[in-house]
Amino acid sequence: MAAPGSGQAGMMAEMMLDHTHDPAAHCWVPGADAHPDFPVQNLPLGVYSIGGGSPRIGVAIGDMVLDAQGLPDLPGDVQDALRQPTLNRLFALPPAERTRLRHALFAYLTGEPAKHAPLHAVADCTLHLPFTVGDYTDFYVGIHHATNIGALFRPDNPLLPNYRHVPIGYHGRASSVRVSGTPVVRPNGQTKAPDAAAPGFGPCRRLDYELELGVWIAGDNELGQPVPIAQAWDRIGGLCVLNDWSARDIQAWEYQPLGPFLAKNFCTSVSPWVVTAEALAPFRTAPRLRSATDPKLLPYLANEADAAFGALSLQTEVALQSAAMRAANLPPVVLSRGDSADAMYWTLAQLVTHHASNGCDLRAGDLLGTGTLSGPARESFGSLMELSEGGKRPVPLPGGEERTFLEDGDTLTITVRAEREGARTIGLGTCTGTIAPAR
Amino acid sequence: MAAPGSGQAGMMAEMMLDHTHDPAAHCWVPGADAHPDFPVQNLPLGVYSIGGGSPRIGVAIGDMVLDAQGLPDLPGDVQDALRQPTLNRLFALPPAERTRLRHALFAYLTGEPAKHAPLHAVADCTLHLPFTVGDYTDFYVGIHHATNIGALFRPDNPLLPNYRHVPIGYHGRASSVRVSGTPVVRPNGQTKAPDAAAPGFGPCRRLDYELELGVWIAGDNELGQPVPIAQAWDRIGGLCVLNDWSARDIQAWEYQPLGPFLAKNFCTSVSPWVVTAEALAPFRTAPRLRSATDPKLLPYLANEADAAFGALSLQTEVALQSAAMRAANLPPVVLSRGDSADAMYWTLAQLVTHHASNGCDLRAGDLLGTGTLSGPARESFGSLMELSEGGKRPVPLPGGEERTFLEDGDTLTITVRAEREGARTIGLGTCTGTIAPAR
Repeated sequence: MAAPGSGQAGMMAEMMLDHTHDPAAHCWVPGADAHPDFPVQNLPLGVYSIGGGSPRIGVAIGDMVLDAQGLPDLPGDVQDALRQPTLNRLFALPPAERTRLRHALFAYLTGEPAKHAPLHAVADCTLHLPFTVGDYTDFYVGIHHATNIGALFRPDNPLLPNYRHVPIGYHGRASSVRVSGTPVVRPNGQTKAPDAAAPGFGPCRRLDYELELGVWIAGDNELGQPVPIAQAWDRIGGLCVLNDWSARDIQAWEYQPLGPFLAKNFCTSVSPWVVTAEALAPFRTAPRLRSATDPKLLPYLANEADAAFGALSLQTEVALQSAAMRAANLPPVVLSRGDSADAMYWTLAQLVTHHASNGCDLRAGDLLGTGTLSGPARESFGSLMELSEGGKRPVPLPGGEERTFLEDGDTLTITVRAEREGARTIGLGTCTGTIAPAR
Repeated sequence: MAAPGSGQAGMMAEMMLDHTHDPAAHCWVPGADAHPDFPVQNLPLGVYSIGGGSPRIGVAIGDMVLDAQGLPDLPGDVQDALRQPTLNRLFALPPAERTRLRHALFAYLTGEPAKHAPLHAVADCTLHLPFTVGDYTDFYVGIHHATNIGALFRPDNPLLPNYRHVPIGYHGRASSVRVSGTPVVRPNGQTKAPDAAAPGFGPCRRLDYELELGVWIAGDNELGQPVPIAQAWDRIGGLCVLNDWSARDIQAWEYQPLGPFLAKNFCTSVSPWVVTAEALAPFRTAPRLRSATDPKLLPYLANEADAAFGALSLQTEVALQSAAMRAANLPPVVLSRGDSADAMYWTLAQLVTHHASNGCDLRAGDLLGTGTLSGPARESFGSLMELSEGGKRPVPLPGGEERTFLEDGDTLTITVRAEREGARTIGLGTCTGTIAPAR
């Protein structure tokens, strides 16, 4: 079992790893050991149902879902939490309880094969939103994205003076968060072309995606009680893939002076599986994007551990398949590939700590989006707005089509994996959605 | 019983009034007929508890709370909803069910005096947040406020070109909404004085209040399904008084480019009683602030009824009592008085319709803030930021003190009443909070 990094950082990171991260571990569920996303080292949690049944908590293992009720060797509060229809109660428990659950799952799935294990093929399951979302906050940690978008909206002033001091974020809409696969209805809205005398109302013509990671918050802090950065990782329950669908033309007209509103709240898609902070421990690394010439961090946002391995290195891929491509049996085309550590200026712990620094109460089941993760080069940009340079440079698709923004029938899929030499690759899974026509 | 307005508008408004608005109606609860806020024409709903008991739904009548369980002549779904610990289920029912409840309450309280009515002195009750808040959205309908604040942040460009076309709003934080009376802990945060080389972190030094109305949403619309303006009032469950506590120094540094975040989410206070749309019907009036030279409304935001009586005329008052004033037995001093119809450029129906115009799903228990309600003159400004002209002109207090922004120990109280000749005055009650020192 390898530890990330070297020296003190490596030693500190190694302390977060245990036998459940062993790349050689063997699971008796057929196909799990070879699965690209969900081997026994991952053990993500989610909510599933079969037929018209009630939602239940499950664990992804290979191409199967293991029902989480009735596992042996778990304390009563964990058992109770696993009988709920969402993960909120489980992630309100102390983090040690979820570590215990991970160890129990690992022991069960790597021990003597169970004869009557409650396993279902994921193909037979409906996957649900894993939490009742309390509040949804979207950040803006992608410094290349902030620079690219800023240049389009404010050519003279792309990256604002506060960017490297304060993790910029804003509140999103919790009601319209949906699980991956939910059709995305093209929104109507007010838009105004720069040369138009007045705005009009109608279907969005600059519909875009945004590649993001989502963080599901664990635990609770009382209103008025901040979360020191040393405790911030205890509040990170797990991660998902997030697509912050965006109506660029609505956004351009409405966003001054209070920020995006209807441009962003018609649907936010998340992948169904919650990949826990424990499972992601091997992929923590030192932040790469804060340079020596950058402003010194204010003390509340800095500690040694965060500087040593507060970042996450996850491999992202965005693919698009149009209706015409689907009809012609053309596979999805990859629009971009990147690494989250090359995109994120701020760490997840800094987001949690900053969010609660004024006493704001974060609750189990709250969702944080990182903001769009664009790498430094065009090949790793996380939105069509950036890839098409604000609509000026169409992106060619197989079959002769091209895109500046999304069209009806387009299916957009984001896939995120965690890969590192010496560690077993695990996946966050996919977040996908198909554009339905405006109503 | 008088009808507001005259001509067609008056006739349309009169149709909304019934015997429950009769100013001559008599209630047998002692003191109710003379109560300034809660006579039998009001019948606001809330959630209370006594001692350490469970929260229950109640109705304010005079200085008493009537427990809402066990009322006669109500259908089963209303009875069920009244047994819940919050109002969410009741306000998810069709509006006709709440009208039926209003009629049943009115009949009970104006009929034969009940011998064993479940009445409690409000002084013996703890009042709770009436809903589990789903999402909280804050608008910006106060055109004088937008102009005043815009002039401080952007002297060259106070009211942005979109203001008269699109109801500006942004998402707030639901987790930190608290019932009136909850202490407001002064937030810490990043701030940067204009002449400072770098930001610092510490207690907010420009803590402010914002006088707002809150709208509790009733009913639900599916994601993707807009709410036509003709149906928007069916989605307005009731109103409350709202104080959007604001950290102006944190806001100035963080708000570009995505809007206010930590400057606003450390606490939002709401009054405990939900004054229903039915109770407020006599106080609807024609919008006053859209002039003939203003841009024509886009069709989705306009209809005859809204133009005729889409506005609400409510009288507002803001009062402050410092710790020193309290110690010297000096009463609170009134900082401003105003009329909501002189402050609101957009109607509540326009806010609901605009919010859902892109398909965003609004759910029973969602909260909308109007944004700060400032009248045209200084005497009716709704925040210290405006009263003190950004801190340049201190407001004198009795006892020799003065204020540019709120200090620890200050108690800020907003009171809202609905008064009109020919109608019985009703009150929304008060929204109050005392500033506690930063932690």
